[in-house]
Amino acid sequence: MKRSIIKLKSNVIAAATVVGGKEHEGPLSGFFDLCDPEDSFGQDTWEKSESEMQRRALAVAMKKSGLAAEDIDAVFAGDLLNQCVGSAYGLLDYGIPYFGLYGACSTSAESIMLAATLTSGGFATRAAAVTSSHNCSAERQFRTPTEYGGQRSPTAQWTVTGAGAYIVGKEGSGARITEALPGIAVDKGISDASNMGAAMAPAAMDTLVRYFTESGRAPRDFDMILTGDLGYEGSSILCELLKNEGIDISRVHSDCGMMIYNRETQDVHSGGSGCGCAATVLGAYVLPKLERGELSDVLFLATGAMMSPASIQQGLSIPSIAHLLHLEAPKKEDRKLWL
Amino acid sequence: MKRSIIKLKSNVIAAATVVGGKEHEGPLSGFFDLCDPEDSFGQDTWEKSESEMQRRALAVAMKKSGLAAEDIDAVFAGDLLNQCVGSAYGLLDYGIPYFGLYGACSTSAESIMLAATLTSGGFATRAAAVTSSHNCSAERQFRTPTEYGGQRSPTAQWTVTGAGAYIVGKEGSGARITEALPGIAVDKGISDASNMGAAMAPAAMDTLVRYFTESGRAPRDFDMILTGDLGYEGSSILCELLKNEGIDISRVHSDCGMMIYNRETQDVHSGGSGCGCAATVLGAYVLPKLERGELSDVLFLATGAMMSPASIQQGLSIPSIAHLLHLEAPKKEDRKLWL
Repeated sequence: MKRSIIKLKSNVIAAATVVGGKEHEGPLSGFFDLCDPEDSFGQDTWEKSESEMQRRALAVAMKKSGLAAEDIDAVFAGDLLNQCVGSAYGLLDYGIPYFGLYGACSTSAESIMLAATLTSGGFATRAAAVTSSHNCSAERQFRTPTEYGGQRSPTAQWTVTGAGAYIVGKEGSGARITEALPGIAVDKGISDASNMGAAMAPAAMDTLVRYFTESGRAPRDFDMILTGDLGYEGSSILCELLKNEGIDISRVHSDCGMMIYNRETQDVHSGGSGCGCAATVLGAYVLPKLERGELSDVLFLATGAMMSPASIQQGLSIPSIAHLLHLEAPKKEDRKLWL
Repeated sequence: MKRSIIKLKSNVIAAATVVGGKEHEGPLSGFFDLCDPEDSFGQDTWEKSESEMQRRALAVAMKKSGLAAEDIDAVFAGDLLNQCVGSAYGLLDYGIPYFGLYGACSTSAESIMLAATLTSGGFATRAAAVTSSHNCSAERQFRTPTEYGGQRSPTAQWTVTGAGAYIVGKEGSGARITEALPGIAVDKGISDASNMGAAMAPAAMDTLVRYFTESGRAPRDFDMILTGDLGYEGSSILCELLKNEGIDISRVHSDCGMMIYNRETQDVHSGGSGCGCAATVLGAYVLPKLERGELSDVLFLATGAMMSPASIQQGLSIPSIAHLLHLEAPKKEDRKLWL
């Protein structure tokens, strides 16, 4: 059992995604469930807009699944805001037993992992995982308010305005969550908060190497190895690092941060980031492909850079983490609705 | 299974507590494992001091249990700092698979609950739960730097400088963790961040009423109902609220925030608070009494006020939560070492 891959037996009963205008204009435009081109979602502060995205994402996931809040035994939730208020306020209306998480941009995988662990162990019948980020609340908190128009570094990533909600349990015919490998925090000395891809890539490498070593599997055993938000910079570092270990993932690797925006036309520099990046790309684009059997085996790793503005100002480097989930297509007999 | 009490089967293998000077001068002085009267723990910022407390707390817990970091499959950790950097940096050295949590001051119970759930379900052999708060890092972040000497409100609580670490698993002869009831976030409209006891008391009431209703038990069935950090104000509100529901806990109720300081001599106004409050009082004072059989049944509820300075400035009220654990003395045959 020692730190090994955790075997799980849960399905994604339903997933829903909510995004802002820039995400809606990107290559995955048609796949998201809800969008507000103005990013405000009817609220008068960006923080409240972020909460509202979480609220709506879970509402849509419940609607899709035909479940009510009373049918969900626990919700695991988190975001990037100080004291995780995006989740605390966003999910208040539902009255579902609440576990607050903070794993930076890895929170999407962390929340799905814990939800699936509770349901796989019979500690909950159904559990939800909800995560978000908002470009304007993040810019104001971590860097400068967007109105300031600060110049961005070439390695900087664009925080996604988006929220994803997942309901998991043993029932249903959705994508299966079959394995999990919790991440170990890694700090390789990167202290440039405008280059989080470089800080997070070694964490993704650590988790992948541990996974391949223990499972005996190789990249060719998967249709897709999907990282959360390494972006262009971090993804190339990850592939390079793994090559040095004799592992070539380049043919099956995709990164949510590289998929969500059009690099040529959307001025996002190194790609997307934020809890909402992996949460929306997985839910809107990858899970449906698994459900339809177009993909059969996916490794999903959301990566997080767990620094704060204060820790960076105090000269510390950036501890990062990558939580891994192995997602599989539903068994053929369960897939009949789609065929 | 619906939102019901979760049955667990894990023990506290070891617990350790680390505190600052003011806590060491309080009534529980002799019970903590480590103390730095200067609160700095050899570090040059209060944030690093807080991380160092977490690092040392887990080191002492491992020492007590004879376990190495490699023997621990997962650590659940959190604190009050933005982006939870107290935990991210404090536990980096150990290389243990890491789950970051944010539950404000409820994080001590949330972390032990998830650690015990993983071990009870066989998903981990041993898991750790580590939480902290530091008076000076909290004052600077939530209110004003301590050097400013701001006047405190009579209902304000004093953030405890302390960290607690717990290692749980199925082995050993420590206190047993037999039940858990995850909290539901509750917001009764309190928006005074200097009166968190009033904001948190309704959350504690909600969890206790749900527990008593489902279990059929009553306050008289417990030696102690221990709340985390309601303080004087919040504790009296909780007892009053429960009385209105026909439940009288006054004879068995204790509050970590009321136990850790001497109200007459230590100028703490409404008592202690912070993740470190419940984490240190439970670990230093209450768990040993359970282990020796001086207490046999304890309900432990850590309560958290999940607002941020930004949400308060934006005029929002305070969502609060209370996670409950049922702790029992070791079975008599396992207690022989102590008798």
